[in-house]
Amino acid sequence: MYTVYTWSTPNGRKPLIMLEELGQPYEIVPVNLREHEQFEAGFLAISPNNKIPAMKDGALSMFESGAILTYLAEKHQRFLANEGPQRYCALQWLYWQVGGLGPMLGQLGFFEKKDSALAKEHFSAEAERLLNVLDRALAGSSYVAGDEYTIADMACYPWTQAAASHLELNLSGKPAVQRWLGMMGERPAVRKAMAWKPPAT
Amino acid sequence: MYTVYTWSTPNGRKPLIMLEELGQPYEIVPVNLREHEQFEAGFLAISPNNKIPAMKDGALSMFESGAILTYLAEKHQRFLANEGPQRYCALQWLYWQVGGLGPMLGQLGFFEKKDSALAKEHFSAEAERLLNVLDRALAGSSYVAGDEYTIADMACYPWTQAAASHLELNLSGKPAVQRWLGMMGERPAVRKAMAWKPPAT
Ligand SMILES: N[C@@H](CCC(=O)N[C@@H](CS)C(=O)NCC(=O)O)C(=O)O
Ligand SMILES: N[C@@H](CCC(=O)N[C@@H](CS)C(=O)NCC(=O)O)C(=O)O
Repeated sequence: MYTVYTWSTPNGRKPLIMLEELGQPYEIVPVNLREHEQFEAGFLAISPNNKIPAMKDGALSMFESGAILTYLAEKHQRFLANEGPQRYCALQWLYWQVGGLGPMLGQLGFFEKKDSALAKEHFSAEAERLLNVLDRALAGSSYVAGDEYTIADMACYPWTQAAASHLELNLSGKPAVQRWLGMMGERPAVRKAMAWKPPAT
Repeated sequence: MYTVYTWSTPNGRKPLIMLEELGQPYEIVPVNLREHEQFEAGFLAISPNNKIPAMKDGALSMFESGAILTYLAEKHQRFLANEGPQRYCALQWLYWQVGGLGPMLGQLGFFEKKDSALAKEHFSAEAERLLNVLDRALAGSSYVAGDEYTIADMACYPWTQAAASHLELNLSGKPAVQRWLGMMGERPAVRKAMAWKPPAT
């Protein structure tokens, strides 16, 4: 039984999507970011970077959504090829999400609230560029890393979804992203993971 | 023979460090960022995100430094355990570098030049926080992901080095980071990779 330490944010949903796809049982330990629970000693012991998601599988614990997705993919032998070009194609897009799409949209969200003209402009341009990169990738194939659904899709989806909803970025010039968002949003696993809400406190 | 598309930046040095550690022959194709060569069609065909590094191994090409390091580690069976807790410990720190340390220091560098008070303050605080996370990790072990030298060290080094040098962040309260920087800087492979300069143009 897996234990997922998470909250209802894009990064927090990634392991939920994966566990739902795998049909594996898991329990959720909500880490209330609004109440700064990510700074509590018990949580820092498994996630020293004070960020969700983190996960436990028996005695093994780990943080960083990309590592968690890779661990689950390798353990259950699904959604990531064992070797060959497809494996590294998926990994490159997974890293692209964790290193690019994620932090840039995250910072944009931060400056949406804090107002700092230059920063906001800068991150808006970056977000637009990244979504165009994604659109071109998806124009040539069904999924982010080719015609197979992989952990790279699971990492990109919650962020792209947030770009369209919370950040109100316009996706009208990005038909491939729109098609993929629609298709992803119909997967029962994705739906269930996206619907998870932290318990009322 | 590997072909590395790169430039003399922290991300650009990561595959060089790895290839030097492996003692594998490689050729470098400089992608002059100052002259915007990362936007040329030939380069975009292998790196659609217009960023270095990218790498070719025969017909296989890939972008994203984390994917490149993982590919080389898996192919040559070095610097990343094949399975077990050590594997995922290294991967979590590699993702931490690509998703946290890298983009935050990169954006800080950007705002050092562009001046935007709030953004700079924000990224300075983030950089300080991340370097403290690294310091605590290194206080408990020789290397970033334990007592073995892994690809997580190769990813963290050029950025931590840049934090101390280019960004002039003060590391005096971070003795473990200082120790590790010194130790890393003595490795011949790291030295060689850090010394690479693009040809004069
Ligand atoms: N690179 C990390 C990013 C994780 C992250 O940014 N988590 C956010 C929520 S989406 C968080 O926990 N923020 C709380 C904080 O920074 O204090 C990953 O992919 O897991
Ligand atoms: N997540 C990427 C980041 C790569 C990156 O930021 N590269 C920079 C140089 S360090 C670049 O190519 N910048 C040129 C541009 O953005 O146009 C990786 O780890 O490979």
